[in-house]
Amino acid sequence: MVCDILITNIKGLVQVRESTPLPLKGKAMDELPVLKNAWLAIKDEIIFDYGLMPDLPGNCSATQTIDAAHRFVFPSFVDSHTHLVFAASREEEFVMKIKGASYEQIAASGGGILNSAKKLQQISEDELFERSLVRAKEIIQSGTGVVEIKSGYGLTTADELKMLRVARRIGKETPLTVRTTFLGAHAVPKEVKKQDYIKQIIEEMIPAVAEENLADYIDVFCEQGFFSPEETEQIVERGKTFGLKPRIHANQLHRSGGVQAGVKTGALSVDHLENIGEEEIELLKNSTVMPTALPGAAFFLGLPFPPARNMIDAGLPLAIASDYNPGSAPSGNMSLMVALACIKMKMTPEEVINAATINTACALELQQAHGSITKGKTANIFITKPIPSIAFLPYAFGSNVIDTVILRGKVKP
Amino acid sequence: MVCDILITNIKGLVQVRESTPLPLKGKAMDELPVLKNAWLAIKDEIIFDYGLMPDLPGNCSATQTIDAAHRFVFPSFVDSHTHLVFAASREEEFVMKIKGASYEQIAASGGGILNSAKKLQQISEDELFERSLVRAKEIIQSGTGVVEIKSGYGLTTADELKMLRVARRIGKETPLTVRTTFLGAHAVPKEVKKQDYIKQIIEEMIPAVAEENLADYIDVFCEQGFFSPEETEQIVERGKTFGLKPRIHANQLHRSGGVQAGVKTGALSVDHLENIGEEEIELLKNSTVMPTALPGAAFFLGLPFPPARNMIDAGLPLAIASDYNPGSAPSGNMSLMVALACIKMKMTPEEVINAATINTACALELQQAHGSITKGKTANIFITKPIPSIAFLPYAFGSNVIDTVILRGKVKP
Repeated sequence: MVCDILITNIKGLVQVRESTPLPLKGKAMDELPVLKNAWLAIKDEIIFDYGLMPDLPGNCSATQTIDAAHRFVFPSFVDSHTHLVFAASREEEFVMKIKGASYEQIAASGGGILNSAKKLQQISEDELFERSLVRAKEIIQSGTGVVEIKSGYGLTTADELKMLRVARRIGKETPLTVRTTFLGAHAVPKEVKKQDYIKQIIEEMIPAVAEENLADYIDVFCEQGFFSPEETEQIVERGKTFGLKPRIHANQLHRSGGVQAGVKTGALSVDHLENIGEEEIELLKNSTVMPTALPGAAFFLGLPFPPARNMIDAGLPLAIASDYNPGSAPSGNMSLMVALACIKMKMTPEEVINAATINTACALELQQAHGSITKGKTANIFITKPIPSIAFLPYAFGSNVIDTVILRGKVKP
Repeated sequence: MVCDILITNIKGLVQVRESTPLPLKGKAMDELPVLKNAWLAIKDEIIFDYGLMPDLPGNCSATQTIDAAHRFVFPSFVDSHTHLVFAASREEEFVMKIKGASYEQIAASGGGILNSAKKLQQISEDELFERSLVRAKEIIQSGTGVVEIKSGYGLTTADELKMLRVARRIGKETPLTVRTTFLGAHAVPKEVKKQDYIKQIIEEMIPAVAEENLADYIDVFCEQGFFSPEETEQIVERGKTFGLKPRIHANQLHRSGGVQAGVKTGALSVDHLENIGEEEIELLKNSTVMPTALPGAAFFLGLPFPPARNMIDAGLPLAIASDYNPGSAPSGNMSLMVALACIKMKMTPEEVINAATINTACALELQQAHGSITKGKTANIFITKPIPSIAFLPYAFGSNVIDTVILRGKVKP
């Protein structure tokens, strides 16, 4: 056997799957297959083979051998919900909130999504790329291999296209696998009537996005004060005619009907879910929609966390993503999201790791190539520092346990 | 001017103080002096001088010059409350808690402080040192320069002494400045009557600790089910006769009278304070005791956070420390503690940075040498990555913004 990288003496090779029914749902989410004392071979950007150390072929030769004694190997995180492309951080609003400013006061002072839109509109595509690249490199180092990136800080046709081009370019110029989502319906620009903006989205933006093949998906911010379930349906149905599958921002701030809109339109996922009840859980049980929790946003905003236990105990699948964005979730650190989901949503480490790898891969339709240690999948993995157990990762919530990142078969410096 | 390290073009030199009344209290906590576009010179392990770039002496020569353009320089964190010396992590109890186990069930299965004691008793002093050194190195990289370390997982005279010797050794073999605290009264060992254990603490442990000069302070876990305020007073008064000043674990789980015990015995600090009301705040106003919040523990245990705003608005000082320990706060990452204090306790970034540097230095009686950028103080600093503002540090709660650590005038590799 000849390969590029051979990793030996792995304390635990995590998330080894060959033929599990996907996505993982209910009780199956608590099963995390681990090979103890294992080896893993990488060749041509692909997971070539793996096994137990006693079974390592004697004729194995590799360009690079890594001894992973006392260390675990995980598949890279798949972060299925981010707004990674933005112009600038918004810590000034964070400080206003600490000092007691209301959402309305922040908006009145030029804050919120419209603040990000203004800043993004003012900079060039190259500058936007450079700033976003810094964040892309940071999430690579924190173990992410696949990332979904939404538009929605453009709010004009030209600026939405600019954002999506930058997102695509991150996929070309870094080893991240990038899926892009058109979220023109993120907010209504100032001094524009909502109906006029929806008309612009439908008649101008969606065709333009499709024309340049800039987006894989379409999303709508379905919340009270933003877009209603009916408007959401109208927008995503239009997107579907251009091949853009829906994924919906739903039920973050209110019980807004977003889950219903997602189920009705056959969305790939409904994301947020801080405000759902039995009715939404029942609806989701009879659908193929992936419920997605974004614990970083609930943590940062001080919202109640999504009822993860109720969902999993009802037999639903669940995905965990970062929501990385400058307003409500300024972190793309998936290890910390995993910790938050354990500490605050009472998910087991096994459930959360499944939720943040294979289930998010399913939510992005990439389960054939990502989200687990499987022969033939893309060689996106990370090797931990010496740690005592898998549960140590969420338990040591302030520690970076990631030592070495390998994406597409290459060790990242 | 000749120096060892010259740092130039500093975007913001944070926490520059020459003669502020200490500790910082009430409104003064929100004032964080920052020099913009500054230089800092380090010589012989000491902050030698600093100033604005236009005033940098022309004849300045340095062995090493660091360009800190776009970067901030902070004084190192002073972490005034940890249990850094322990034998092993306890993530198995974390998982039990996620699955719904009660405190009593975990204790019945051998968990809790007694679990840590059992593990610590079983390993040698050298082994305990090696394991603790890993954590010491981690907190150095996360920006801590001074750390208080408590005993309390020994619970026998020999093992308490072993822990304290290891803590002292960390102060000798790393550049950390270490203050040690004897916390024999952390829990009552199994199959020992509390009165007998208190007698052992008073008659045997305290004299032995003092004999070897192993502790600077004495602490008692003053909580319902552990040690009463009267027992706390009895133990710390004995410690005081041996020169050990008190600092008290108070009001974490109940309104236990711990603050009262701290004020009555003239403690340097009362730490935790999740359960205090107006009465405790009034008492603290008429004392020199430093109230200390440990946001990592409240976060990890899901407790209500200490009422930081009420305390500061009442004119009190406040300190922030990590409580780093394997049971209830498995992180010594002070940047994350700062973020938690902003996000969950509604402290401003300025207040928290003061709380985690100069006020913790006061709580450890080290304000003459640590906790601020002041001529003649120990050269313990960190240089950030390029970041837009000071508030970015707590806002980007999942990011490590620390780029370079300098302790005692030496750059840490």
